[in-house]
Amino acid sequence: MQESKNYILKIDCSDEKGLIYRIADVVFKYQLNIIKNDEFVDRDNGKFFMRAELSGEMNMNAFKGTLEAMLPAHADIYVAEARKKDIILMGTKETHCLGDILLKHDSDDLNANILAIVSNYEDLKGLSDKFNIPFHCVSHEGLNRAEHEAKVLEVLSAYTVDYIVLAKYMRILSSEFVGHYEEKMINIHHSFLPAFIGANPYKQAFSRGVKIIGATAHFVNNNLDEGPIIAQDVIHVNHEMTWKDMQRAGRNVEKNVLSNALDLVFEERIFVHDNKTIIF
Amino acid sequence: MQESKNYILKIDCSDEKGLIYRIADVVFKYQLNIIKNDEFVDRDNGKFFMRAELSGEMNMNAFKGTLEAMLPAHADIYVAEARKKDIILMGTKETHCLGDILLKHDSDDLNANILAIVSNYEDLKGLSDKFNIPFHCVSHEGLNRAEHEAKVLEVLSAYTVDYIVLAKYMRILSSEFVGHYEEKMINIHHSFLPAFIGANPYKQAFSRGVKIIGATAHFVNNNLDEGPIIAQDVIHVNHEMTWKDMQRAGRNVEKNVLSNALDLVFEERIFVHDNKTIIF
Amino acid sequence: MQESKNYILKIDCSDEKGLIYRIADVVFKYQLNIIKNDEFVDRDNGKFFMRAELSGEMNMNAFKGTLEAMLPAHADIYVAEARKKDIILMGTKETHCLGDILLKHDSDDLNANILAIVSNYEDLKGLSDKFNIPFHCVSHEGLNRAEHEAKVLEVLSAYTVDYIVLAKYMRILSSEFVGHYEEKMINIHHSFLPAFIGANPYKQAFSRGVKIIGATAHFVNNNLDEGPIIAQDVIHVNHEMTWKDMQRAGRNVEKNVLSNALDLVFEERIFVHDNKTIIF
Amino acid sequence: MQESKNYILKIDCSDEKGLIYRIADVVFKYQLNIIKNDEFVDRDNGKFFMRAELSGEMNMNAFKGTLEAMLPAHADIYVAEARKKDIILMGTKETHCLGDILLKHDSDDLNANILAIVSNYEDLKGLSDKFNIPFHCVSHEGLNRAEHEAKVLEVLSAYTVDYIVLAKYMRILSSEFVGHYEEKMINIHHSFLPAFIGANPYKQAFSRGVKIIGATAHFVNNNLDEGPIIAQDVIHVNHEMTWKDMQRAGRNVEKNVLSNALDLVFEERIFVHDNKTIIF
Repeated sequence: MQESKNYILKIDCSDEKGLIYRIADVVFKYQLNIIKNDEFVDRDNGKFFMRAELSGEMNMNAFKGTLEAMLPAHADIYVAEARKKDIILMGTKETHCLGDILLKHDSDDLNANILAIVSNYEDLKGLSDKFNIPFHCVSHEGLNRAEHEAKVLEVLSAYTVDYIVLAKYMRILSSEFVGHYEEKMINIHHSFLPAFIGANPYKQAFSRGVKIIGATAHFVNNNLDEGPIIAQDVIHVNHEMTWKDMQRAGRNVEKNVLSNALDLVFEERIFVHDNKTIIF
Repeated sequence: MQESKNYILKIDCSDEKGLIYRIADVVFKYQLNIIKNDEFVDRDNGKFFMRAELSGEMNMNAFKGTLEAMLPAHADIYVAEARKKDIILMGTKETHCLGDILLKHDSDDLNANILAIVSNYEDLKGLSDKFNIPFHCVSHEGLNRAEHEAKVLEVLSAYTVDYIVLAKYMRILSSEFVGHYEEKMINIHHSFLPAFIGANPYKQAFSRGVKIIGATAHFVNNNLDEGPIIAQDVIHVNHEMTWKDMQRAGRNVEKNVLSNALDLVFEERIFVHDNKTIIF
Repeated sequence: MQESKNYILKIDCSDEKGLIYRIADVVFKYQLNIIKNDEFVDRDNGKFFMRAELSGEMNMNAFKGTLEAMLPAHADIYVAEARKKDIILMGTKETHCLGDILLKHDSDDLNANILAIVSNYEDLKGLSDKFNIPFHCVSHEGLNRAEHEAKVLEVLSAYTVDYIVLAKYMRILSSEFVGHYEEKMINIHHSFLPAFIGANPYKQAFSRGVKIIGATAHFVNNNLDEGPIIAQDVIHVNHEMTWKDMQRAGRNVEKNVLSNALDLVFEERIFVHDNKTIIF
Repeated sequence: MQESKNYILKIDCSDEKGLIYRIADVVFKYQLNIIKNDEFVDRDNGKFFMRAELSGEMNMNAFKGTLEAMLPAHADIYVAEARKKDIILMGTKETHCLGDILLKHDSDDLNANILAIVSNYEDLKGLSDKFNIPFHCVSHEGLNRAEHEAKVLEVLSAYTVDYIVLAKYMRILSSEFVGHYEEKMINIHHSFLPAFIGANPYKQAFSRGVKIIGATAHFVNNNLDEGPIIAQDVIHVNHEMTWKDMQRAGRNVEKNVLSNALDLVFEERIFVHDNKTIIF
């Protein structure tokens, strides 16, 4: 007797009458159980999005082929067994986001395997060593951006990764670099985007005198801090706080927002469309 | 040519393989468009819940009959045209929740028609009059609970209502009274239930020295403040606040939580099962 | 025997050693009770801020004079009896903020007297009438900005006001107009500033795909949406919401943020320095 | 020339007219700078609370003596140099709170020295070792409560500690044990107290169908989960979450609430009165 497996099905296609019926028909014929099912119709853009968690036993290629035949042309269909993702963490010097992910990994509370940590400084080596994660320092000293990124890419290329997590990696990445990891790279920005794009958002927030600060986790694309937003959260601040106080208070928000975003990413709960996320 | 209409479909039945397929099949055969569709499987209890917003033109009885034949025995099926609900508001003296609902009603921002306001005091008459809503004062003076409730029921019975909203109605209702309006009566309780059940929760919160206070909107059942919870929210408080300060600050939370809950109720987005709510 | 009165004392001066001692000395000599006392030293700018609630009986001019003699040169000293403020509300068409303030005023839960409502449309007349507040429509039709503002100023000049509340007044005000009411005019902006400055922030938020929207109450100054921020709050949104859904959900935030800001303003709890607020 | 030092002054006494004047007078005579100053008068109980951060150079005993002579009888006066606190962490098996504190300690972001970790299981040894913190396992197996607590006390007595942090220590402590560390022991409870006191609050929350869960950091006293509350926070939950999902989501809240509470405790910002906290 074959063991039942868990699958993730994601469909993204133009909207038509009868889509749910046709998809449910295929799922039923393959004798799969629907554990969880979510749909969303973007009526403005005539787009249909569906994500299902299925259990059973099947030939995934056949299943995908049958679905394809039923769906509108150019449908985007993803079928895969549910599994832990393989990730690489990139950081610079700060440990709050990186350490939080390492701790969750260590207590088996992260839906991912951390293959390596890559940084442009040596500062994170100690923490990486504590948790027995391979650490690669690729210093940017004396290199221009292209040269440095080439070296980073070389290190990354030794691994097969699902996602790259920028856990406070404080260097701007070129479009070319980002292009290698479209919708595969997640960044945590230390402001409530689109407020305070760019350098030192806490200083900007302090200067403006805002009463709330926040953090934003997003996929990285070619425009700095303008990728599709995955998760955001905020905390209240007041006049007694210096920008360093805000920075310190903000760290807890940053790590939680990144943690929540990674949960969603690793469970394949996100669609990206029109630079926005649909999250089930 | 017939005009397209909007329908709400709600199904609550025991879980089985193929349910979505069978339901989608019927929907497709009736040539209905699925505008929005949500499902939830309660795996612990083997229960399936589904709510869909449909558009098209159909014979609702036929549709319901076809569905019934396809679904497990004892399925609970609700089909109705989407429409504004008819409601009665009950209050005592406080105006913040009642006034908020009246304002929304007045600016056509409430998915309901307010048929009347019923109170055990005269205090709310002025506000009712401002907004031209019939006001019924049913004083409890000199009456025992049963006598008073009989009088209230008499007033209510003159109206055909979908829901009764207790917008700070400060009298305890008997099981018998409540029994007339099962899952049809919504209350706002001025605490974060189950903390501070009963009288003067703000005084209780102050005494306990909590750092957060809240409000809870729930369906009313036989046990005081123990009905299925629809919505909750909180605000932070501190040692500088007296219980009256907390009460004042809490009013904004109360009215927003009630407002959010009513939106959900009036759009038929809620299932009640096992004294808990499933909300789509 | 004279009755005890309540006073607000606000001091804003350059910081020096011994300031609290000197001020407390004067307060003690005038036999005043300190009900509440807050201080803040802005160390970066060498500024001292203090606000006290005092009770007792005194000659305010003499008290102020004595304080002046004790404090550094150019100290800003405000002493006044605690009292309800006199305000005018300005709006355009939306009723959620205006109605909320009217309701609080009507149930004696606003620390202010509403002298009048001024609008550039007739839409708010009905609501103003319900609550018996004088309503002035000053249409902008056929007038340029300067002409329209001159007419509004003429209406306002008939009243002696402490504050003007822009409760969704949807016209940009000139520097000249604003100059008449420095730190006396409070606006509610329907976004989490500095994100989405300017027109239709909900559409902007929807386009950007943010997961949180907010509202900001601020004093009005010469730069649109750039005055000192008094209060901000946010709510979570998701991909299912259109910009109109966000607008609707945002209304509750807008009115609460404005309400909280007005409480602070009317109790004289705010200092403005360097385009930021210090709030006690 | 002597270097300037930072001091914390805390005063807790019955309220009288002129207290701030008298205290500020002493501070001025000792030529101390007031960096930050907060007062609170509990008018119901006639109590005065003040905390100041001072800088300068002084004889603390003389300063305290001078203050004592100026203040009402039975005034509680605390004067100490600002310094990192010495703490011991106690845990059982869970690592999220403990690990978070260790990470902050490791990146010099905790205002405390961690002297040791004490647990009733061996599970936390690995994490303690990673961060080079002495680990003491005091198993409760085969021991009654009194015997086990005697052994724990023996371990603790080898250290001089300011505070003991129960970072998910899952054993109930006797009144006798707690009596050794009055207002010196901080616990994190995994619910929004007073809701869901006692065992498995996430299961209780799930059963009740609440829409918000939370965490509470409090000083430990003789009544389980009823000590003075220091900090609380919440997150929204929904019907899709099992109690284990709530538990997982709750961990981030627990560790942040504990972290915020420890900041306040270690900076001596808290007074306890009448089982409530006053926090500056």
